[in-house]
Amino acid sequence: MKEKVVLAYSGGLDTTAIIPWLKENYDCEVICCCIDVGQKEELDGLEERAKACGASKLYIKNVVDEYVENYIMPTVQADAVFEYKYLLGTATARPLIAKVLVDVARQEGATAICHGATGKGNDQIRFELGIKALAPELKIIAAWRDPKWTMDSRESEIEYCRAHGINLPFSADNSYSRDRNIWHISHEGLELEDPSCAPNYDHLLVLSNSPEKAPEEDVHLSIDWEKGVPVALNGEKMSQREILEKLNEIGGQHGIGIIDIVENRVVGMKSRGVYETPGGTILMEAHQQLEELILDRETLKYKRLVSVEFAELVYAAKWFSPLREALTAFVDKTQEYVTGTTNFRLYKGNIIKEGTTSPYSLYDEDIASFKTGDLYDHHDAEGFITLYGLSTKVRAMKLNNKK
Amino acid sequence: MKEKVVLAYSGGLDTTAIIPWLKENYDCEVICCCIDVGQKEELDGLEERAKACGASKLYIKNVVDEYVENYIMPTVQADAVFEYKYLLGTATARPLIAKVLVDVARQEGATAICHGATGKGNDQIRFELGIKALAPELKIIAAWRDPKWTMDSRESEIEYCRAHGINLPFSADNSYSRDRNIWHISHEGLELEDPSCAPNYDHLLVLSNSPEKAPEEDVHLSIDWEKGVPVALNGEKMSQREILEKLNEIGGQHGIGIIDIVENRVVGMKSRGVYETPGGTILMEAHQQLEELILDRETLKYKRLVSVEFAELVYAAKWFSPLREALTAFVDKTQEYVTGTTNFRLYKGNIIKEGTTSPYSLYDEDIASFKTGDLYDHHDAEGFITLYGLSTKVRAMKLNNKK
Amino acid sequence: MKEKVVLAYSGGLDTTAIIPWLKENYDCEVICCCIDVGQKEELDGLEERAKACGASKLYIKNVVDEYVENYIMPTVQADAVFEYKYLLGTATARPLIAKVLVDVARQEGATAICHGATGKGNDQIRFELGIKALAPELKIIAAWRDPKWTMDSRESEIEYCRAHGINLPFSADNSYSRDRNIWHISHEGLELEDPSCAPNYDHLLVLSNSPEKAPEEDVHLSIDWEKGVPVALNGEKMSQREILEKLNEIGGQHGIGIIDIVENRVVGMKSRGVYETPGGTILMEAHQQLEELILDRETLKYKRLVSVEFAELVYAAKWFSPLREALTAFVDKTQEYVTGTTNFRLYKGNIIKEGTTSPYSLYDEDIASFKTGDLYDHHDAEGFITLYGLSTKVRAMKLNNKK
Amino acid sequence: MKEKVVLAYSGGLDTTAIIPWLKENYDCEVICCCIDVGQKEELDGLEERAKACGASKLYIKNVVDEYVENYIMPTVQADAVFEYKYLLGTATARPLIAKVLVDVARQEGATAICHGATGKGNDQIRFELGIKALAPELKIIAAWRDPKWTMDSRESEIEYCRAHGINLPFSADNSYSRDRNIWHISHEGLELEDPSCAPNYDHLLVLSNSPEKAPEEDVHLSIDWEKGVPVALNGEKMSQREILEKLNEIGGQHGIGIIDIVENRVVGMKSRGVYETPGGTILMEAHQQLEELILDRETLKYKRLVSVEFAELVYAAKWFSPLREALTAFVDKTQEYVTGTTNFRLYKGNIIKEGTTSPYSLYDEDIASFKTGDLYDHHDAEGFITLYGLSTKVRAMKLNNKK
Repeated sequence: MKEKVVLAYSGGLDTTAIIPWLKENYDCEVICCCIDVGQKEELDGLEERAKACGASKLYIKNVVDEYVENYIMPTVQADAVFEYKYLLGTATARPLIAKVLVDVARQEGATAICHGATGKGNDQIRFELGIKALAPELKIIAAWRDPKWTMDSRESEIEYCRAHGINLPFSADNSYSRDRNIWHISHEGLELEDPSCAPNYDHLLVLSNSPEKAPEEDVHLSIDWEKGVPVALNGEKMSQREILEKLNEIGGQHGIGIIDIVENRVVGMKSRGVYETPGGTILMEAHQQLEELILDRETLKYKRLVSVEFAELVYAAKWFSPLREALTAFVDKTQEYVTGTTNFRLYKGNIIKEGTTSPYSLYDEDIASFKTGDLYDHHDAEGFITLYGLSTKVRAMKLNNKK
Repeated sequence: MKEKVVLAYSGGLDTTAIIPWLKENYDCEVICCCIDVGQKEELDGLEERAKACGASKLYIKNVVDEYVENYIMPTVQADAVFEYKYLLGTATARPLIAKVLVDVARQEGATAICHGATGKGNDQIRFELGIKALAPELKIIAAWRDPKWTMDSRESEIEYCRAHGINLPFSADNSYSRDRNIWHISHEGLELEDPSCAPNYDHLLVLSNSPEKAPEEDVHLSIDWEKGVPVALNGEKMSQREILEKLNEIGGQHGIGIIDIVENRVVGMKSRGVYETPGGTILMEAHQQLEELILDRETLKYKRLVSVEFAELVYAAKWFSPLREALTAFVDKTQEYVTGTTNFRLYKGNIIKEGTTSPYSLYDEDIASFKTGDLYDHHDAEGFITLYGLSTKVRAMKLNNKK
Repeated sequence: MKEKVVLAYSGGLDTTAIIPWLKENYDCEVICCCIDVGQKEELDGLEERAKACGASKLYIKNVVDEYVENYIMPTVQADAVFEYKYLLGTATARPLIAKVLVDVARQEGATAICHGATGKGNDQIRFELGIKALAPELKIIAAWRDPKWTMDSRESEIEYCRAHGINLPFSADNSYSRDRNIWHISHEGLELEDPSCAPNYDHLLVLSNSPEKAPEEDVHLSIDWEKGVPVALNGEKMSQREILEKLNEIGGQHGIGIIDIVENRVVGMKSRGVYETPGGTILMEAHQQLEELILDRETLKYKRLVSVEFAELVYAAKWFSPLREALTAFVDKTQEYVTGTTNFRLYKGNIIKEGTTSPYSLYDEDIASFKTGDLYDHHDAEGFITLYGLSTKVRAMKLNNKK
Repeated sequence: MKEKVVLAYSGGLDTTAIIPWLKENYDCEVICCCIDVGQKEELDGLEERAKACGASKLYIKNVVDEYVENYIMPTVQADAVFEYKYLLGTATARPLIAKVLVDVARQEGATAICHGATGKGNDQIRFELGIKALAPELKIIAAWRDPKWTMDSRESEIEYCRAHGINLPFSADNSYSRDRNIWHISHEGLELEDPSCAPNYDHLLVLSNSPEKAPEEDVHLSIDWEKGVPVALNGEKMSQREILEKLNEIGGQHGIGIIDIVENRVVGMKSRGVYETPGGTILMEAHQQLEELILDRETLKYKRLVSVEFAELVYAAKWFSPLREALTAFVDKTQEYVTGTTNFRLYKGNIIKEGTTSPYSLYDEDIASFKTGDLYDHHDAEGFITLYGLSTKVRAMKLNNKK
């Protein structure tokens, strides 16, 4: 009996060409696995297509809810942003895809997993570290890096398919290189390859209006949170996925969450991309809006440091790692009281806060206002400053006459 | 001869009332010192006013350029933001004010410095730690915390002034509590004291249009940078102060940089404020835009951590501290190559990047694009991932069968 | 009925004098509470003594096991060391003492807690923040800082006691100021107040021999660990307290864990102390010895940063704080596999490792030795270094001709 | 004319065999370069040997002073320790070796640099990243990873040498794998490959006595420091190198600085080594001893975090990197006042402090002792604690009744 290889399959030209290539070069049975993380691709007819190309089976796995609940929300709770701006849309989806591939491989008794990620990107690393972490016994075939792989253009892939009896209508494609899921869509290539160029937003945007094309009328929203995750939108209970979908729609309409960055890939090069993350941007902002009211100063400060580390790790393919898990344990503890309601409105690319409430708010109007009360006497500040500034004063006394 | 006290004087009711109060309670000569950090207050007639109230002298010190160059720019270079959002406008100005007060005190041979900051705020601490750091021998009189201070309302201050022969036209004031300088204006009080309320922007904004009221037409800008500081706007060489003033004007018009936050004061309480920082917000964004192209991944990551510490320290009144100075030495080193041009446009609250260039850009189009070249062969990724993921794989092998 | 005040009572002169002072100045009933954290003080006759001084009740609470398990061990697991050296002996005990005082106060329906800590030290802050965190409604009386407190010497305290009918034999004391519990003993005062003086170890040491006086013969020990806590000594299962007691005895004999430091107190001054922590030093070392084998590089690195923060927080009286709890959640997660056996020997102040084993060791002899194997081919290093060094090389290429 | 290759040459079998191998496989002229960083190898006759093996030239570069001043001392000032214990002896020398190789290559007009480091270690990475950072245009030949390299044992290397007319007396060697320089010697291999084994110190130690074999008599030492570097030993001015050599001698005699660790290599595996760093351990300790007196609490805390990062970077081959340079700028600033004298004695593996003095000491006996003085009134602590604990108390009030 032939060995089985599970292929991460999208239905596109690249992964389709891999099917006959695998069979030819590895003499194996190919199990295609298409993992739905909200990329909204056409899944109709995928099964026929895979079979026509020689796959022995196609799995279609919808893991959108799992993606939102177990990958996105921990990232929101961590306030994790990579390099000032990137909300980690691709970086959070890859490990889940790796996990599903591993699950299918185990179920099928496969000995290898194959992916078609490029040899210059982050995603190959994210797929492979995910697989190594979960199933170190599985072989990994990175088709594009494989010495046996000879195709180097869409044309040669189409050619190869035809030569192996696959006659599918693949268009010549010279659009952006994109990755989409329920959290975001990324765009690379074309004019973006020159960082001195402004993005061609008219051509490029998929999920969003640009701020200019957003409605003149703002929209008011409220999100209810429990322990750091959203539970209702405008007072209506919904699943986390439903809230995100709704926010994507509204946020996209109002031009929220379009960013344009040059980032540092794990493989050591800078690359430039545009990301649309409408709902995600709103969730991140609203989550911070609520944390302002709940977290004490020291926790908030330290959490900012943890956020940076969390983002770096996840970007760098270490979702399934002891450090990421320990950081999540830290974050979870901080979210215990992150419960309340955040009000805001969207207007042409802006998220404008309109008040926040929480049963666990540490804001105390009596203390904060300009009156003196029970808890705090203006004169206490005297002793506070004396001690708070003591080392400053002593240092100045000791050093000033030595300089 | 009487001892001299230098008073931080604004010309407002609070600091005016302090003049007779100091003379009565400390039997001293009062030297008023008004420090111009760009607050755009009416300085005409200030001298007469101070004298009329019994001051023996008034200094007016314009230190706007020093403020921009030595306090604001190091903060921009540090990308320092307090608690997600606050750009440290008040926190950076206070230490310079303390420094000027100390300079005047030394010049005059004064033995004490007096300020009128409230006993619940951060500013008393910033003034006093600044003075302790620079002149530990000087006595500090915090009028409002002084046991001899008995006035507890504007009315009682006006009363006290009259009783001491000062008849000046002070209006009853029940507006926001504000602090303004060339970098920002802050607003506290009134409806802002309830964090569940949306700010009344129509009433509140001083420097800016709200995004709604901003022009329909966007504006394109470019800033040239050298070693992390701006040197030209739209190709025209200007001083840092001139660039900031121009950006304040344009940014304010286009609704840039209005934030609404609940923050954690040094004295242990949460407070809520709205800040307008139009030019500052643009400078911070554009600075990061340029750093994206220049800084390698490790430096950028670590700098984000340093930014958090820098912001915490400056907020917490430690501008003149060995740690702040050491962090600045770190930051300075990172700015060596932060030279180039940032293009962007402003539209109704949005800053939209339009391309970045630098002679020191680390972005390399040849590597980043999808071709294989000299520097990097797709197959190198094979070895990279094997080693990069080695500990992940070994850990999985060792632990998977133990769990 | 009079209000009740719970007094943290040690039986010494200071806290004894507080009993009549409280009754006189606060017209209250005094409930003494003596909390045993392993300080090995003479508790016999304490009840009579307290009663003789006018206390209405004495609680003696032995919380040594709770101290070891819930306060010391989390600190060991965190590898927390303050300012290079201090193992936090006093800092971990104070919050537990505060907790017991609060428990007694609630049980008794008391309205206040009184302590006799000095106004210059850290302990007043640790007691009081502990009480504020657990029972914000309770009043705190800090006798020595109380304006009504007038005694300023041992003599005046003895005098005051006599005047209130208390005739107990208190010796004139001019020894070191000490704090002892099961984890450590600290020494301050006398020659230690001059940091240029060497400590007089002959006079000073209580728990330990100096290395010179330690036996010529070494002693071999092994500790078994489960999830980061010790469970057996030399193969014999014991409670954590028993292990610590035994290690104190053996470690003290062999001169382990004597340190001499100048530290930075929370109140802003430097102070100098000598600490003996024989068993604790062994536990901390052995814990790290095991972690070396278990933790991956990234976790170990980040844990070192968390250790610093943990130590700072605990030193600074924030045991009961959301950040300390979140850091502990992080640490707990890292300890999941910290299970194994650490062998070492003690010889005249030295802890010398003698081999470590763990079922979860990530050390792999096959990979580490100089042969090439399945998991790792020497040639993989080629690709690794190309990518790992890519940004370094590109930067050099881009900048070298610009400098 | 043939191209020139600069070979990092030690005179040992491995690098000797590379000479004919390079000529055969790369048809080049071989320039040998032996870099003396204090490894105390036999350099006599090296030139003849190199020539006899076919090298066209031999450089011997003594860079011990440069190594001590520009690589070791910045590491001491940074208090940089990798993974709890390792003082970075090899990691700091490799970049300097790379720099000298680059200098020679440029002087000679060579086009490549060749090294003989193993494909499993850190050193290949340190050499190569050093070269990439300084001379990205140079080709790097890693002989042992080269596909053309076929020798896989000492025997085959000796064989290869003979076949190429080189008849030198190379002993069969089955000792530890060692790296030595003026800072340390490392040992790997043999029994150390099994982490459950105790090291065979009798067999292993090169620079040091074990504590047992150290003299019964202690030795008293003092080091004078200026701005964080040692300038005198026992009152006698010496160069940094001389001080280190003298401390190596005395420290080695007294059993100081022997460590046994399992560390995480950059290439993803754990390895186990024993390090002797006698003088280095003393310098690091004494440096911290002085910093205790000079650094304020915040600087000391942050410097501990920077130390971790510095150590990680240097271990990970990033000496020549913008981040390492920026961290050094931070550290330099903190060393401005690290001037003074540290007294201590050595006794059988122990470094025992005996008093520290500095003109810039922040320790103030008057404040630290138990009296109340001008700078600090016990009652000031009242206000301090009220504000310092305010957020703790408010949080408890707000949450206690919600839990």
